[in-house]
Amino acid sequence: MAAEENIIIIGKKPVIDYVLATIVLFNEGYDEVIIRGQGSNVSKAVDVYNALVHRLQDSVELVGVSIDSVERGRRLIPVIEIRVRRKIA
Amino acid sequence: MAAEENIIIIGKKPVIDYVLATIVLFNEGYDEVIIRGQGSNVSKAVDVYNALVHRLQDSVELVGVSIDSVERGRRLIPVIEIRVRRKIA
Repeated sequence: MAAEENIIIIGKKPVIDYVLATIVLFNEGYDEVIIRGQGSNVSKAVDVYNALVHRLQDSVELVGVSIDSVERGRRLIPVIEIRVRRKIA
Repeated sequence: MAAEENIIIIGKKPVIDYVLATIVLFNEGYDEVIIRGQGSNVSKAVDVYNALVHRLQDSVELVGVSIDSVERGRRLIPVIEIRVRRKIA
């Protein structure tokens, strides 16, 4: 799981692993974390977001969602970036 | 394909069918169309958006992306809504 700075790149691991990785980044002092999913992992990135909100309730908020595509050969691969912020009570 | 007003609900059809349906709604006079995908169709909804932008280039713009979940039994199903607007040149 490449956590370049504050980016969580969704791969083959279970959703909970990415939720935990996000919380670890918050605990390391990052106020914002980007959850990035590509291809079929776009849905999983939204799963991670929903599971994070389900657990952290009001102590996390959605900053924004951006969608885009990357070209691979002649195909457009969908990409999503979900930016979440820690809310300090 | 349930096109309640200006909502395109992504299902099992090919991406191009939903791109066409969006363009038809624009031609019917809707300025904004919502592309809605659930579960594994969240990625496909982003595919539809990317294919639409690829075809319509500057005559369509992204208004916003919202992500959420719906409960099914004890599971949280991811949902995305992508709102696009026709840009009149």
